[in-house]
Amino acid sequence: MTKIYYAPKTISLATIITLEEIGVPYEGIAVDFSKDEQKKSAYLEVNQKARVPTLITSHGVLTETPAMLSYLAHTYPEAELAPLTDAYALAQLHSIMSYICSTVHVAHAHRMRGHRWSDDPSAIAAMQAYVPTSMAQIWRYVEDHIMNGDHDWVMGNAYTVVDPYLFTVAMWMEGDGVDPSAYPKVHAHRNRVLQRAAVIKALKIVPA
Amino acid sequence: MTKIYYAPKTISLATIITLEEIGVPYEGIAVDFSKDEQKKSAYLEVNQKARVPTLITSHGVLTETPAMLSYLAHTYPEAELAPLTDAYALAQLHSIMSYICSTVHVAHAHRMRGHRWSDDPSAIAAMQAYVPTSMAQIWRYVEDHIMNGDHDWVMGNAYTVVDPYLFTVAMWMEGDGVDPSAYPKVHAHRNRVLQRAAVIKALKIVPA
Repeated sequence: MTKIYYAPKTISLATIITLEEIGVPYEGIAVDFSKDEQKKSAYLEVNQKARVPTLITSHGVLTETPAMLSYLAHTYPEAELAPLTDAYALAQLHSIMSYICSTVHVAHAHRMRGHRWSDDPSAIAAMQAYVPTSMAQIWRYVEDHIMNGDHDWVMGNAYTVVDPYLFTVAMWMEGDGVDPSAYPKVHAHRNRVLQRAAVIKALKIVPA
Repeated sequence: MTKIYYAPKTISLATIITLEEIGVPYEGIAVDFSKDEQKKSAYLEVNQKARVPTLITSHGVLTETPAMLSYLAHTYPEAELAPLTDAYALAQLHSIMSYICSTVHVAHAHRMRGHRWSDDPSAIAAMQAYVPTSMAQIWRYVEDHIMNGDHDWVMGNAYTVVDPYLFTVAMWMEGDGVDPSAYPKVHAHRNRVLQRAAVIKALKIVPA
């Protein structure tokens, strides 16, 4: 059976929503960050990155959210969660997923994980203090250049795997010191995703 | 015709190598960072992120290296630069590309682009000073867990789009204060990629 190792308030939520959307039977295994379980040998045997989530598929282990979402979209084409037969549209989906993982998620990570980029406590504090500024710039870009149409979903009229991914990082806005009402299209998208049955179910397993 | 906006010593190289590998006719347009051209209106009309590269395809504009590489692999399947019909192998390729863009490239960017994550000069200096430490950890992970087989290429026996991507960031090792000889498999891979005709040609256009 498919397994996913996850922790609350992490990007794990995006993949769990997608498993729920497709209806894949899976076992969720919580990793307790308060006990540093992600750094202990039992977990490191599963994922040497000491991060969550980790998806255990029938083919093998997968890490990195864009890869898991891409795998699920390709493995369950009947769920129609990516434009699989249109190389340009598929690349646009990958472009937005890359922006979320390398720019949005990374800027957010400077609030709680500054130790990845400095061992100087004052520099780590300075990174943390700057998060509301960097995230405001990023959400402005998303509002004006990613959510710039009148469609319900990120890729247009079709809900795809990038919707729960954007939703998951958008749920961090308040914690990052950003006011969602300043980004009405992102905010409306967040509320739209929140109403989906799969999302309501996933949030009971892994809080945002 | 396909166009690519690029700058020397940036991740642009990975996509230019791939265009050369496939033999796609393209026009290269240099963006002069010394004149801040990437922040000026003429370029911002092309790419609002103020970054390079930007790929102009017959279908539209693409940003983000993993998306460009994925687009090229899907659009030119005869070049066999990705395992297009194997969902798990394709997801593994995406996993490594996500790791490069969100972890490897991001840690490297703390050397020259610390202003993205703080406006405090001492914090920016502290981030810069930590780059040899963070990059050493990252290259250790790549050596032990990505290049952990005896294959010539990242995905095994087949050269794929992730090879020029890893190569491009590996060319930054010395500048990041990392000794390539400490990572013999990554180093050998870098030297192997360096010998390819497409790479020799691309390096004349866009130095690493």
